Amino acid sequence: MRIYENGPSSVLKLEEAVPPVLSEDEVLIKVSTIGLNRAEVLFRQGLYLERNTFPSRIGYEACGTLVACGSAVKSSFPSLSPGDRVSTIPGFSQTKHGVYGEWAVVPARYVEKCPQVLSDEAGASIWMPYLTAYGAIKALGAVSAGQYVLVTAASSSVGYAALEIVKREGAFSIATTRTAAKKQALLDAGADYVIVTEEENLVAAVQKITNGKGADIIFDAVAGPFLLALAKSCAYEGQIFIYGALSLATTNFPLQLSLKRGLKISGYTMFQITHDDKRFSLGKEYVLTGIAEGMFKPRIDSVFDFNDIAAAQDYMESNKQNGKIVVKI
Amino acid sequence: MRIYENGPSSVLKLEEAVPPVLSEDEVLIKVSTIGLNRAEVLFRQGLYLERNTFPSRIGYEACGTLVACGSAVKSSFPSLSPGDRVSTIPGFSQTKHGVYGEWAVVPARYVEKCPQVLSDEAGASIWMPYLTAYGAIKALGAVSAGQYVLVTAASSSVGYAALEIVKREGAFSIATTRTAAKKQALLDAGADYVIVTEEENLVAAVQKITNGKGADIIFDAVAGPFLLALAKSCAYEGQIFIYGALSLATTNFPLQLSLKRGLKISGYTMFQITHDDKRFSLGKEYVLTGIAEGMFKPRIDSVFDFNDIAAAQDYMESNKQNGKIVVKI
Repeated sequence: MRIYENGPSSVLKLEEAVPPVLSEDEVLIKVSTIGLNRAEVLFRQGLYLERNTFPSRIGYEACGTLVACGSAVKSSFPSLSPGDRVSTIPGFSQTKHGVYGEWAVVPARYVEKCPQVLSDEAGASIWMPYLTAYGAIKALGAVSAGQYVLVTAASSSVGYAALEIVKREGAFSIATTRTAAKKQALLDAGADYVIVTEEENLVAAVQKITNGKGADIIFDAVAGPFLLALAKSCAYEGQIFIYGALSLATTNFPLQLSLKRGLKISGYTMFQITHDDKRFSLGKEYVLTGIAEGMFKPRIDSVFDFNDIAAAQDYMESNKQNGKIVVKI
Repeated sequence: MRIYENGPSSVLKLEEAVPPVLSEDEVLIKVSTIGLNRAEVLFRQGLYLERNTFPSRIGYEACGTLVACGSAVKSSFPSLSPGDRVSTIPGFSQTKHGVYGEWAVVPARYVEKCPQVLSDEAGASIWMPYLTAYGAIKALGAVSAGQYVLVTAASSSVGYAALEIVKREGAFSIATTRTAAKKQALLDAGADYVIVTEEENLVAAVQKITNGKGADIIFDAVAGPFLLALAKSCAYEGQIFIYGALSLATTNFPLQLSLKRGLKISGYTMFQITHDDKRFSLGKEYVLTGIAEGMFKPRIDSVFDFNDIAAAQDYMESNKQNGKIVVKI
């Protein structure tokens, strides 16, 4: 699948092509399943951190079979062999290595064996959610037991992963969701508290839950004017990690509140983990351990046919999903 | 000195009064010298973090003689005795304990013996500057040798203290100042680089100085629209500490840049140090050591008579000073 221009989902073009010759550090994957990410919708629209060079491939997460390895892969990544069932980790360029397609060519650094306990659907739904949430909440945020972690837009796949990570760390999660539709699902997934932002006053609800202390860590996908309410919900010397911009409105810096409370407000992407050897290694181990323990269970919202991938992206833009949208080849 | 309403410097009222009975943890100081702070101008205007309760005292920093101790001071703070030459540390309420006057009543926790090497003028100019800069750059920012630290509005007393702390830590300081008038003084004070923001392109200058890396830590007193240029001048995973709001304009959060670079933008006040026992103790030791080593030399801009304290505050608002404005009783 390639795109030749930025625009609506109709710019996604399915084409016949043969895989390129592998560079020494690349592997070829026969893709069985694709996990969709908002980053791909933004990328298609020309709004993502990485800008397209046309023609551009697209897509971050896939599960499939490793078919061939570049010449240096065997020595550099001895754990990978042809025949392995693998997942991709989104540390690479979508333009160059995008995984929407029957095959994908990805740097071996960003390929990991898929745990046996996971289906291919789940295997295409691990790394962006869990590594993103891990990086902010655990690696950089250093969450500790008993703290309160506020997770906004919690019904996204990253949101669900965050709830499980908070639980694993012995902290309390407060999930926000706009309408009551997903409240029960969030509670079922282990959220300690759920705030329906269109029905409840966020700041008052958080102050009540935390006995006036506020949230120690806020993991936010929204930004925009909502940041002021988040700052008001944040504890003294609390941390706000903004990893998305679902609100397209201007984001004001809450200066007075941040001075008064010593708030730390960070932009954050998963690349801060994948592009750092030590953090990346610790992060992979953390996620695989959580899966092995049975604490991390990727939540699949729906499965689309590959021919309907444009519809799957449109569905993602509707914000009606509850977990990961998956596409089968 | 008391104020009965917020407003211009004419609201500062000099009155005859007798000191109140000391609480068990308070001390009485006969003030010889007052060091002015912008926080006091803002407090007078009703724009400070602490709001006034009228009638309100005012003032954070003084040097003078300890005259009397509350009943618990001897056991809790055995290093303090009547007759000591002492400095106040601004961790208290101005409304209640403000030091503008012939005497001041201050919690003993926020009183420290004045190093012998310092004059009374210098003794009234230590704690706000050095503890403020220490807290952001060293205690929270964890500056390391070889890093680049950008100090905005560097000709303030806090700015000068920051330059000395950066040098003591083996890092490189980049001072900004609006006009060329104070450039030489900043270089003489040990700034490794000075950028005159009305004449030079800040972002280009910082990129050139740092070989394209950007500043690791930015210690900013300005906020407002200037924050965008600071974010552009900031290194990957760099930290911006905003400790003042000289610009009264709205501060936008530089979302795209902060996502791309993983920037951490914090509001910061010295209270994050003074209100935490461990940080406070380490901070006092750090500042006193720097003074004893001769590395920290408070820079006095001018000395006003106590009767002219309103004029001294007006002068501070003019932003023409270069270092600390001091008032003698």
